[in-house]
Amino acid sequence: MKKDVLIRTALPTDVDSVLTLIKELADFERAPDAVNIQAQDLLEDGFGSHPAFTCFVAESDGKLVGMALGYPRYSTWDGKSMHLEDLIVSQSYRGLGIGFSLYKTFIHYAASQGVRRIEWAVLDWNQSAIDFYRKTGAEVLPDWRLVQMDNQAITDFITQYPHASI
Amino acid sequence: MKKDVLIRTALPTDVDSVLTLIKELADFERAPDAVNIQAQDLLEDGFGSHPAFTCFVAESDGKLVGMALGYPRYSTWDGKSMHLEDLIVSQSYRGLGIGFSLYKTFIHYAASQGVRRIEWAVLDWNQSAIDFYRKTGAEVLPDWRLVQMDNQAITDFITQYPHASI
Repeated sequence: MKKDVLIRTALPTDVDSVLTLIKELADFERAPDAVNIQAQDLLEDGFGSHPAFTCFVAESDGKLVGMALGYPRYSTWDGKSMHLEDLIVSQSYRGLGIGFSLYKTFIHYAASQGVRRIEWAVLDWNQSAIDFYRKTGAEVLPDWRLVQMDNQAITDFITQYPHASI
Repeated sequence: MKKDVLIRTALPTDVDSVLTLIKELADFERAPDAVNIQAQDLLEDGFGSHPAFTCFVAESDGKLVGMALGYPRYSTWDGKSMHLEDLIVSQSYRGLGIGFSLYKTFIHYAASQGVRRIEWAVLDWNQSAIDFYRKTGAEVLPDWRLVQMDNQAITDFITQYPHASI
C-alpha cells in the first residue's frame, strides 16, 4: 500500500465525504438513485450516544478515498456477529491495497468484539469481489436470497393490517 | 387464528423453548448441526442491559409454538433498518395463522422504531415462504448473495494477518 494512506476511525466531520463514497458505490452497483439518506442522517445515526454503525476510513492527502462500515448483528446459530455493510474504495485508488487494509481493519475490529461470525452481501456479477472474499476464507452462500420490505411497503402493510397482535 | 394463541414479548424464562424452536428451524433448513449457541447465550445476549435482539413468541396452552427474532441494522441507502433473523412456527402448529401474527407483530414493532427498511433472508427452495413474503409487499432480490466468515475463518485470517492497519 502507498505509504501516504492512513486508515482511521471516521469522525463526525467525515460525513460529507462518507456520503460521497456511498453514492460512488451505489453507482457501481447500478443503483445510482438508491441513496435516500443525507449527511445529517449519518451524523445523527453514527456519531451520537448510541451509534448505529462503526466506520473506518482511508485517508490520502487529506482526502477520504475509501471506507468500511458495519455494525453488530446476531445469529441464532452462532451468537454475536458483525455485519460489513459497505467496503468501498474510490475508483482511482483501487489496486493499491487500500480495500484489503480496510477489510483487515474491519475483521480485527470484529474479532476484538468477540463475534463468532462476520457476514455481508455481494452482487452475483461482482466476480472480483467474490474471488477476493473466498481467498480470505469467507464463504459465498449459493442458496440464500435477500428479502427487503422498503418504506412504502411497510407503510402499505401497516395500513392494510393496522392492528399488531401485541 | 385459534383463540388460545397469545403473541407476547419473550421472557428470560423462555430461552430453553426458544432454543428448541431455533433447532427445529435449523432441521427444516437442512442444517441440523448448525446451532452452536446454548440457552445461556440467549439469556445473556438477549435479556441483559444491552440486548442484542428482540424476540416475540407465540404461546399456546403454556407452550411456545412460534417466535420472531430480530434486531436493528443500518442501511447506507435508507438509514435505520430492522432485520428479521428468524420467523419460526413449530411444525404441528402451522397453517393456523400464527406465523402471520408473529410477522405482523414484528413489522409493527419495526415501524414503531422508525425504520425505513426491514430485511431478512430466505432459502431459494422455500417457495411457500417466498410466495408469502412477496404477497405482503416484500421483494426477493435475485442478484445478491450472502457471504459469511465463520469463527474458524476469522481466527485463521487473524493468524495470517496479525496486524490490523489501525
